[in-house]
Amino acid sequence: MTYNVGNYLLDRLAELGVNHLFGVPGDFNLQFLDDVLAHPDISWVGNANELNAGYAADGYARIRGVGALLTTYGVGELSAINATAGSYAENVPVIHIVGAPSLAAQNAHLRMHHTLGDGDFQHFVRMAAEVSAATAVLQPATAASDIDRVLRDAVLHHKPGYIMLPVDVAVAAAAKPAAPLNVNLRVSSPSVEHEFRVAATEFLRDKKAAVLADIMTERLGATENLRDLVESTGLPFATMIWGKSILDETSPQFAGVYIGGLSASTTRATVEEAQALILAGVQFTDTTSGLYTHQIDAARTITVDAEQTQIGRKIFAPLAFTDALRILKEAALDAGVRPAEHTVPAHGTTLPDYGEPEPTGVPACGDRPLTQQALWSIIPSHLDSRNNVVVEMGTSFFGMAQQSFPAQTRFIGMPLWGSIGYSLPALLGTALADEQARGVLFIGDGSAQLTVQELGSIFRHRLTPVIFLINNDGYTIERSIHGPNATYNDIATYDWQKIPAAFGGTDQTVLVLRAATVDELATACATARETRDKAVFIEVVTDRDDMPQLLRDFGAMAAAINRKE
Amino acid sequence: MTYNVGNYLLDRLAELGVNHLFGVPGDFNLQFLDDVLAHPDISWVGNANELNAGYAADGYARIRGVGALLTTYGVGELSAINATAGSYAENVPVIHIVGAPSLAAQNAHLRMHHTLGDGDFQHFVRMAAEVSAATAVLQPATAASDIDRVLRDAVLHHKPGYIMLPVDVAVAAAAKPAAPLNVNLRVSSPSVEHEFRVAATEFLRDKKAAVLADIMTERLGATENLRDLVESTGLPFATMIWGKSILDETSPQFAGVYIGGLSASTTRATVEEAQALILAGVQFTDTTSGLYTHQIDAARTITVDAEQTQIGRKIFAPLAFTDALRILKEAALDAGVRPAEHTVPAHGTTLPDYGEPEPTGVPACGDRPLTQQALWSIIPSHLDSRNNVVVEMGTSFFGMAQQSFPAQTRFIGMPLWGSIGYSLPALLGTALADEQARGVLFIGDGSAQLTVQELGSIFRHRLTPVIFLINNDGYTIERSIHGPNATYNDIATYDWQKIPAAFGGTDQTVLVLRAATVDELATACATARETRDKAVFIEVVTDRDDMPQLLRDFGAMAAAINRKE
Repeated sequence: MTYNVGNYLLDRLAELGVNHLFGVPGDFNLQFLDDVLAHPDISWVGNANELNAGYAADGYARIRGVGALLTTYGVGELSAINATAGSYAENVPVIHIVGAPSLAAQNAHLRMHHTLGDGDFQHFVRMAAEVSAATAVLQPATAASDIDRVLRDAVLHHKPGYIMLPVDVAVAAAAKPAAPLNVNLRVSSPSVEHEFRVAATEFLRDKKAAVLADIMTERLGATENLRDLVESTGLPFATMIWGKSILDETSPQFAGVYIGGLSASTTRATVEEAQALILAGVQFTDTTSGLYTHQIDAARTITVDAEQTQIGRKIFAPLAFTDALRILKEAALDAGVRPAEHTVPAHGTTLPDYGEPEPTGVPACGDRPLTQQALWSIIPSHLDSRNNVVVEMGTSFFGMAQQSFPAQTRFIGMPLWGSIGYSLPALLGTALADEQARGVLFIGDGSAQLTVQELGSIFRHRLTPVIFLINNDGYTIERSIHGPNATYNDIATYDWQKIPAAFGGTDQTVLVLRAATVDELATACATARETRDKAVFIEVVTDRDDMPQLLRDFGAMAAAINRKE
Repeated sequence: MTYNVGNYLLDRLAELGVNHLFGVPGDFNLQFLDDVLAHPDISWVGNANELNAGYAADGYARIRGVGALLTTYGVGELSAINATAGSYAENVPVIHIVGAPSLAAQNAHLRMHHTLGDGDFQHFVRMAAEVSAATAVLQPATAASDIDRVLRDAVLHHKPGYIMLPVDVAVAAAAKPAAPLNVNLRVSSPSVEHEFRVAATEFLRDKKAAVLADIMTERLGATENLRDLVESTGLPFATMIWGKSILDETSPQFAGVYIGGLSASTTRATVEEAQALILAGVQFTDTTSGLYTHQIDAARTITVDAEQTQIGRKIFAPLAFTDALRILKEAALDAGVRPAEHTVPAHGTTLPDYGEPEPTGVPACGDRPLTQQALWSIIPSHLDSRNNVVVEMGTSFFGMAQQSFPAQTRFIGMPLWGSIGYSLPALLGTALADEQARGVLFIGDGSAQLTVQELGSIFRHRLTPVIFLINNDGYTIERSIHGPNATYNDIATYDWQKIPAAFGGTDQTVLVLRAATVDELATACATARETRDKAVFIEVVTDRDDMPQLLRDFGAMAAAINRKE
C-alpha cells in the first residue's frame, strides 16, 4: 500500500496520544476506515450515533489531552456538532474528521446525497468554524501542512479542530512526517519573566495568601506546577467546581470548593479575605460562580491565565501559564508569604452544611428510603482513589460537588456547556482513555434517555465501570428552576432493570442492581467494589421532588435571573 | 394573563395547522412551555432528545405542511441541527423555536451556561442560517413582524425557519394577530401565463406524451392539479423514487418508478422515449437518478418547477407551479396529445425483475428462512390503503421502492439527506399528524440504534403503528458500498425482543413479535392487521449479507464513484 494522506493523519494523531478513534461509519469514510483498522496504534470504536461519538471523544480527550472522532459528511458531522461545541466551550481539543464526497464531485457541484442539494459543499465547514480553533478542507498538495496546522491550533488553544477529508484526498499519496509535530508553541519573554518575578515578589511580600484553582490548570498541563506551588509554600487552596479534584482534597491545605455565595462560609473567608489570592486558570461562569455571587477583589489578586498574568491592573505578557506558576512559587518563597486562614471542610462536605450528615452504615432505627442527602454522602466513602468520576450536569453534579473526594480521584463534569446526556458516552471515552482507573458514572433518568444506547458500546467493549442511574422520574434540574409539577418535566417511563439486557448486556458483561433504601445502596456499593470483572449498573430510586439543597438554591437563583428583564 | 409574544407565535403556528409541538424542555424555554400547555390548539410532545424531536417535526410537516419543535439554547438547538438540515435538503418547512437567555443577559455578554463562554450569543443563529430559509432573534418591538416573516418564508420556500426566543421576549406583551397570515405569495404573470399556454399547446401538438412526477409536486400543494392533468389527458405517469406514491400506483396509467439506468426497461422506455415529457417538480440527485444514469432529452421536455416552467430552452417566469399544471392540462387537451407507450409494472415490481417473485402464501415445499427478496414482496399485500409507510434510507428504502403500493398509501423516505435513524422518530411525527392512517415503519438494526429511545414516546402516547425492525446484524447499506466483512460495519448486538419493554412498552401498549421465516412473517403481518389497539413491533431476521438487488447495484455504483479521482 502506498503511504497516503489518511495514513499521515493517523500517524499524527497517534503521535499526540490518540489510540482510539470514535465515530460512525458512512459511505464517505469507509476507505479511510480500512486505514484505521490497519493502523498499529489506533483502534476503531464504533458508537451508536455521532453525538455519542463526540461526547466519548471529549471524555477521552479530557484524560489523554487530545481525542478524535470520525463521521461522514453532512448527516454525520452535524449530529456531532453539539458535542464539538461542548468541547469548544469546555476547552477540550477534539479532532473531528469528516469523510466527504470526492473533490471531483465537489468541484462539479453535484446534487449528491448527504448534501443540501444546492451544489454548495461548504455549508458545514462554515458551521464547524463557529466551534473550532481551526478548520481545513484537505487538498492533496497541502494536506500535510493543513493537518499539522489544525492539530497544532487545536492543542495550543484547547479547542476542537475540524478536518474535511474527501474520499479521493484520503487515498492520495503522501510523505511520512519528517519530524514530530511541535505543539508546544507558547511563548514567555525573558524580560517579561524578570519583570513579573520582581512585581510578584513585591506584591506578595509578608502577605497571607491563598490559591484558587480551576480546570484550565489541568488543560494547560500545569497541574504539577500548581501542586509544586502549593506544596512548597504551604498555601491553602480552594478549587472552582469545574476544577474540582485537580488537587488532593484530602490535603490539610484544602479549603473547599468555591462557588461564590453558595460556598461554605469558611471557604468564602479563605478565598475572599486572603491578603493575596492567586487565581490559577479561573473562569467565573454563572454555574461555577454561584450565579455571579463571587466577591474577588482584583487589587489583591494575581490572575494567571494561559498567555498572560495580571497583578492588580498590570498585565505581564507574553507569559506562559507554566512559567508564571514556576516563577510565582519562587517569588512566594522569596517574599515570605504565609498561609491565609483556612478550615478543612468538615465531614467531607465542601459546601454549606445543609443539616446533619446521613449515617453511612446501618442505622439503629432500621432501614429508610434513600434521600438525595443520603445518596451523595454515602457514595464518596465507596470511591477508590483511582476512580474517574463522571457526573451528569444536574442533580448528580450538584450532589457530588458537595463531597470531598479521595486523592487522585478525578471529577469530570460539564458545567459551562451543560449538555444533558453527555456523561454516559463520556464515561465510555474515559474508560478507554485510562484503563488503570475504574469509571464511575452518576446520571439521572431524564438525562440518560438522550444517549442511553451508548450502554451497548460499553458492554460490547467489555468495559467495567460502575453506573449509578438515579431514577427520580423526570427532569429534576428543570423542576428546580420552573414547573415542578408541569407535564413537560415528565418523561417516558423506562424499565431501567431491563435496559442493560436490551442493549446486549449479559451475565458476563454487566451486573444489574437496584437500591431504594440506605441499606440497599450501601450493599450495592460494596458489591460493585467487589465485582471488578464486569460493569455494574445500579438503579438508584429517589423521590421525584427530592433534590440536593445546592441544586434547590441554584435553581431558585436561575429562575430569578430568567425572570429579570 | 397578558397576551404575550409566546402566545402570538403559538397562535400563528396553530393557524398554519400545527397542533403538536415537539421538543425537549430546558431552562430557557420553561416559561414559554407554560404558554404551550395552556394553548387550546397545540399539544406538547416531549421527545427523548432534540435530534429525535427534529426528525419527528419533519415527519409531521411532511403530512401537515408545517411542523415545529422547541429546544433550548446551544445544547438543545445544535443537537437538532442535523434534522433541520435534512428538512432543508428535503424541502420541509419546520419551524425551530429556541428558548434563549434573556436579551439583558445577551447584551451584557455574560459568561453563561449553554454558551461558548465568549459572550457571543450569535454563534448558533449563524449556524442555523446555513440551513434555514429565514432566521430571527426576537426583540419585543419587532417580534410580531419577525415571526410573520420567518413563517411566511419557511412556508413559501418549503425550508426550515429559525426563531430565537429570549426568555424575556417570550413574556413581553404583544397584540393578537389582526388578520390571518398570508403565506400564498407565489406569483404568475397573466402575460406569461398566456405565452406559456400558446407555447405548450404548440409544443404538445399531436405528440405522444408522458409525465414524470416528483415529491415537490406534493410539497407545493399541487398533487390535485397533477392528478387532474393525468386523469383528464390519460397520459401515462412515472414517479421518481423520492415522490413514490404521490399518484395512485394501482392506476392502469402507472408506468413504474423511474430511477435512471436502474429502472425497469418498460419504465425507461416510457420516460426516455416519449415524444413529449412533462417533468413535474423533478430533481435528479445521485440516489434518485440511479447515480446520474437518467437520460432525459431537454428538447422533448417541459420542466415545471416551483416558480418557472421551461419548454426546451425557453423559460416562462414568473409562473407558479399550480398555474403551470392547470394551463398544461388545458394545452394538452387542446393539442390533442396521446398517451406514450407504457406497460403497467408486472406483479407489483416497479423496477427490474430480479428473479422469480417469492410466493406469499405457505409454499408447498414447507417453510423457508426469510430472504430480502421474500420480505419486500410479501409485505405490500398486507398494507392498507390508508397506511403511512415510513422507510429508513438503506435496505428498507431500496427494498420498498421496488414494490407497487395500494392507492392512497403514502411513502415517506429521505433519499437526498439520507440521515440514518430518521425514520423512527419521523414515524412518531406522522402518527400524530394523521390519526386516520396507520403508520408502518421499516428500519434496520444499524439505523435503529441511532434513535431507538423514541420508541418510549410512541408507547407513552399510546400510538398504534406497526414497526418492522429488520435485524440483519449491522450496516448493510455500508457493506454494499465498501467493507462487507469489515468490523466497522458491525454494531453492538441488542436484544430486540427486550427493547420495547425496556422503553416502557407494556402488554397494553405494544405487541412484540418475531419473524425469521416466510410463514412467520405472513402470520406476523396478519396479526398486526388484526391488532389495532396497540403498537406492533416485529423483529424480522434476515441474513447479514442478504440485500435487495437494487441496493447491491446501487452500492457497487456508489463505490465506483467514490473511487474515481
